[in-house]
Amino acid sequence: MSSRYEQSAVTVLGLGPMGRALARALLDAGLPTTVWNRTPGRDRELVEQGAAGARTPEEAVAASPLTLICVVNYDAADAVLRRDAVTDALKGRAVVNLTADTPNRARDTARWAAEHGIRYLDGAIMTPTTTIGTPAAVFIHSGPEELYQEHRPVWEALGGTHTHLGEDIGRAAAYDIALLDIFWTAMAGYAHALAVAGAEGVTARELAPFAQGIGAILPPLFGEVAGEVDDGTFSGEGNPLTSAVSSMAHVVETSEAHGIDAGVMRAAEGMARRAVGLGHGADGFVRIAEVLGRR
Amino acid sequence: MSSRYEQSAVTVLGLGPMGRALARALLDAGLPTTVWNRTPGRDRELVEQGAAGARTPEEAVAASPLTLICVVNYDAADAVLRRDAVTDALKGRAVVNLTADTPNRARDTARWAAEHGIRYLDGAIMTPTTTIGTPAAVFIHSGPEELYQEHRPVWEALGGTHTHLGEDIGRAAAYDIALLDIFWTAMAGYAHALAVAGAEGVTARELAPFAQGIGAILPPLFGEVAGEVDDGTFSGEGNPLTSAVSSMAHVVETSEAHGIDAGVMRAAEGMARRAVGLGHGADGFVRIAEVLGRR
Repeated sequence: MSSRYEQSAVTVLGLGPMGRALARALLDAGLPTTVWNRTPGRDRELVEQGAAGARTPEEAVAASPLTLICVVNYDAADAVLRRDAVTDALKGRAVVNLTADTPNRARDTARWAAEHGIRYLDGAIMTPTTTIGTPAAVFIHSGPEELYQEHRPVWEALGGTHTHLGEDIGRAAAYDIALLDIFWTAMAGYAHALAVAGAEGVTARELAPFAQGIGAILPPLFGEVAGEVDDGTFSGEGNPLTSAVSSMAHVVETSEAHGIDAGVMRAAEGMARRAVGLGHGADGFVRIAEVLGRR
Repeated sequence: MSSRYEQSAVTVLGLGPMGRALARALLDAGLPTTVWNRTPGRDRELVEQGAAGARTPEEAVAASPLTLICVVNYDAADAVLRRDAVTDALKGRAVVNLTADTPNRARDTARWAAEHGIRYLDGAIMTPTTTIGTPAAVFIHSGPEELYQEHRPVWEALGGTHTHLGEDIGRAAAYDIALLDIFWTAMAGYAHALAVAGAEGVTARELAPFAQGIGAILPPLFGEVAGEVDDGTFSGEGNPLTSAVSSMAHVVETSEAHGIDAGVMRAAEGMARRAVGLGHGADGFVRIAEVLGRR
């Protein structure tokens, strides 16, 4: 941490579990930290640890050259940032929005920030609250590179790895959305699998070690097939789409035979069958990405 | 490998990529191996390696006390096994069906086997063809424990880990279905994420390292939440269903704003919203498994 930066200060708006974790990491790193939350009282523990508790968001943002905001979504972020008093106080200062939402919301916020002379960087946090301040945290950022570089000591204080993905302000949210897509779809599959297993008399604890084995297959496979999508060459050798479709149909049949809704797998199977119907049955599964993305 | 067993022989029916891998592993381990495939010619390489190529399936099964069958599904397996000549030749011998299908098909096959004095074990192969004969292979089995133990040297020849899941003949297929549910749902999420990322100008190779990071989160998480399902206590602390629903809606919105079908995530989001609607919004995501499984 540069000595110049130790003089600097950070404001954290939003003290949900993630906001509190961010503020704690900043305090642990010795950065002067001001905090504010819409619902009062959430700052007590942080103030005991040395944070300055602001009474209003305008007071909070005025206390630091850099404000981090992490709330439930951009509607909530806008409700705080786009009040005149706050917008005025932010003029000439920088905001990093770590709130999860869509790329279009980040772009809209960039327009608002530019109109009001506010410097704006978008970010997303890819790991749980417990990782903040530890090497396991993963942050992604997009927007002005210069602004990102200027606040490196803050990223260091937050711990983990930080990646600046590019100047396009929507890029961090685009990655975030794609990664949430993978995460929540996989979790939906796991929850559904546990229901089907349960109906077959298999407990979750019995299935879990095997489920973990399947989970461990995914990261190398994600890496292997990525090139196929970029290059447009989809090798179905050993595992063509037609064989995936057959497995998916077995899952739907077993689920529905137990009276368990199979809507997620039905949608996935439909996606795969449409790719087969378009003549791609011998291709690998990620041909689906190309088919979905067609204009 | 016991010396008694080296005298023993195994028949492999079905010489698709997986059947060929199984036969190769048996040959490599020095077990006398007879092979047959409906479409002729597929046995050439194996015969060169020392396999006996049978002209008919009845001749193939008569050559060994144990037959492994691995074909596209149980319809295909039945078309081979349930012809009178084959059924007669199998009397007093053992069949292990490594074909993937539903638990009900395994149960139906068990009834057929019992009627005809055929010993029957069901199995499933959880790893790709390239793992067969290596420590990375994962096989699961269910049915008579005695029959499973008797053929341990064959499992050793096939490599990897073998688990006998219980006497219920449908159990291997039940695990298989649940694990395929996880795998193909996750792959559907990945393919969809690649399409959305592509529409946002993010290449698959750019996304892949982060996708791998998300993939790496899954196995420990699968383990952590399994207990919640078995115990019926769903801790949403730090990540309640309401927050999952919000992320899922962002994925749907971003996907559809690019004209990309979001049917899988729509189905998953609907599943989550119904659980919220039933009063479980503060619970963790796997509450969905309990809701899906309700009678």
